[in-house]
Amino acid sequence: MQREIEELCATARGCYARGWVPATSGNFSVRSGDRILITASGLDKGKLTAEDLLEIDISGEVIGGKGRPSAETKLHLVIYRDRPNAGAILHVHSVWNTLLSGKFESEGFVALRGYELLKGLAGVATHEHVESVPIIANTQEHASLAEKLKGVLQENGEAHGVLLSRHGLYTWGKSVAEARRHLEALEFLFEVEGRRLTAGI
Amino acid sequence: MQREIEELCATARGCYARGWVPATSGNFSVRSGDRILITASGLDKGKLTAEDLLEIDISGEVIGGKGRPSAETKLHLVIYRDRPNAGAILHVHSVWNTLLSGKFESEGFVALRGYELLKGLAGVATHEHVESVPIIANTQEHASLAEKLKGVLQENGEAHGVLLSRHGLYTWGKSVAEARRHLEALEFLFEVEGRRLTAGI
Amino acid sequence: MQREIEELCATARGCYARGWVPATSGNFSVRSGDRILITASGLDKGKLTAEDLLEIDISGEVIGGKGRPSAETKLHLVIYRDRPNAGAILHVHSVWNTLLSGKFESEGFVALRGYELLKGLAGVATHEHVESVPIIANTQEHASLAEKLKGVLQENGEAHGVLLSRHGLYTWGKSVAEARRHLEALEFLFEVEGRRLTAGI
Amino acid sequence: MQREIEELCATARGCYARGWVPATSGNFSVRSGDRILITASGLDKGKLTAEDLLEIDISGEVIGGKGRPSAETKLHLVIYRDRPNAGAILHVHSVWNTLLSGKFESEGFVALRGYELLKGLAGVATHEHVESVPIIANTQEHASLAEKLKGVLQENGEAHGVLLSRHGLYTWGKSVAEARRHLEALEFLFEVEGRRLTAGI
Repeated sequence: MQREIEELCATARGCYARGWVPATSGNFSVRSGDRILITASGLDKGKLTAEDLLEIDISGEVIGGKGRPSAETKLHLVIYRDRPNAGAILHVHSVWNTLLSGKFESEGFVALRGYELLKGLAGVATHEHVESVPIIANTQEHASLAEKLKGVLQENGEAHGVLLSRHGLYTWGKSVAEARRHLEALEFLFEVEGRRLTAGI
Repeated sequence: MQREIEELCATARGCYARGWVPATSGNFSVRSGDRILITASGLDKGKLTAEDLLEIDISGEVIGGKGRPSAETKLHLVIYRDRPNAGAILHVHSVWNTLLSGKFESEGFVALRGYELLKGLAGVATHEHVESVPIIANTQEHASLAEKLKGVLQENGEAHGVLLSRHGLYTWGKSVAEARRHLEALEFLFEVEGRRLTAGI
Repeated sequence: MQREIEELCATARGCYARGWVPATSGNFSVRSGDRILITASGLDKGKLTAEDLLEIDISGEVIGGKGRPSAETKLHLVIYRDRPNAGAILHVHSVWNTLLSGKFESEGFVALRGYELLKGLAGVATHEHVESVPIIANTQEHASLAEKLKGVLQENGEAHGVLLSRHGLYTWGKSVAEARRHLEALEFLFEVEGRRLTAGI
Repeated sequence: MQREIEELCATARGCYARGWVPATSGNFSVRSGDRILITASGLDKGKLTAEDLLEIDISGEVIGGKGRPSAETKLHLVIYRDRPNAGAILHVHSVWNTLLSGKFESEGFVALRGYELLKGLAGVATHEHVESVPIIANTQEHASLAEKLKGVLQENGEAHGVLLSRHGLYTWGKSVAEARRHLEALEFLFEVEGRRLTAGI
């Protein structure tokens, strides 16, 4: 677990360096068995270390660590419950996921198709795959958001990530490394699609 | 205070690395009680250290340090007077704040609305917030600019930042960390809006 | 050889830092005489070290090292056979090569002309050169892809690189340094052309 | 002089990190009295150290150092002769200077006006300044290019830089620090203008 925790913190710091978690935004967690470690609320992700993580159980009860859980902790728990194999969850706010989630909110998903990088997503073996990333309208009512997320995860059993409109991306994986691979693949494809739309090509 | 000073210098170096203070542009200050420390004129912000700061009082009188104050020191003083809780001020020239301040100069403000990242601004609890960032026409008459800034701050008591047209952004916070959080949130949103306008989406 | 191996790994890490090999994508190899060292499948290129390389022979047989060869190892072998002077091969997935290879797939090539940076390509002495970078349609049938690549290399004896559509770039050089020079020149020009098309100028 | 040399090499490495001298492109020099130190041909600027510089005299004769002078050494000499106060010259190939020099070649100059960052150029005291950056058509005939550059420098006595079309920027200053300040100001403004044209705003 200690190695996963270090990897999670390094991933958070790397996301900050890329501008994906500005202004203390974003949150990151890792799970092993019943233990979940998650970033406390309001931290500068560019300086994240293991001491900045809270330990919680699957009901969200804080077991250890300093600080208080962020309101989005609920969403991590929904994902862990619905995706038993998920061992890590990454939530980031990038310029391109913000733009695309706003642009396609009314359609309900961003479709990524025909790109080799889709093979960066677990279980995807061909660029002919279509990845539909569901989009949920943003809200500050976190209980209702958690409910909506649960429904979206169940309706989209194959999805590797979910977008909140003009807000950010949630993605996950069996390990921190796999979650980061999904994050890098999805963000790359969001940038490609965003630039393609901009260029009109 | 020493910790705030170190944090201010690290923030300045970070801004240089992101291309937000090219060509010795930008200036940065921190206040504690009656003491104000501010970057001297004409420094390369990529190498800023505590020795590069001048100590001044609220009237702008230099109390200590090497170098001379920049002409924009006056604007820092106006902000400190009008915002008693401000403990740090950051002024940067980014590509996107330059573009948007020029584009919207005639309207008098850039409106940012509907983005989760607005919650990076102190006191903002929902993405439904509209942040109007006032824009002042640029001028080299610093006394008249200081007067205009004073008026704009008083008319926009809730604003977290002010733009000078085709020039740059002033933002502040109770601490360096909060000022940097405001800076990162505003610059992220300027980039999103700039790219959205470019894409026509 | 040891120096070339270190240079190859440093190049891979540099490509990761630039976002050109996200999500464990890309692969890199170096050849000296009959020895070929190539990245094993599925590695994070941001952490690549010499221990992550497989030794193979020109038929693709694994001689040493840990891990398994990636499916694209075949394409490296085709290039080494057809370009006897190639001592290193770099394969990257950048946003701009993904965009341009998709945009121009139906024409069969991206044409780069009139740029001084073309002189970064071996044997090119003037900006008046036209570099046609052939584009092959992407497929997961690696045997047929290898056949197509062989044909394309033979028909384009002067080419310094080959694109796979919406997938990535293969480029090579007599040494790692030359291959990296070709990579930097081609990616720079892809970005210039991509931005030029976007701007409509 | 030793400090200027170290500063020049650090500047070159910084330019590489920003993608402004890809594929061994660009060249850099510093002058003190009759001594000129200039980068030898074909070097990777990301690794530049003092040992990579040639010492030449004002006629271009090599006095010391390893390697051979690049063909563009002539252009440095023309600038040093025509601008007696120039103590350092930087030549870079950026994406935005490549795009703008191509776009405005037929007009003969890029005009930069109304931006605060213009004050990063020596002697410019107001954003109301108009900086006309002359553009010379690119050619591989370096003797004729040197002649043209000489004419352009004489006709544009106030210019802080000169563009070669689809090739790159030459800029200079009394010291390496001033030359770098000019470089950062001009490249920032090229990016702003390039993005402004792209956005159509």
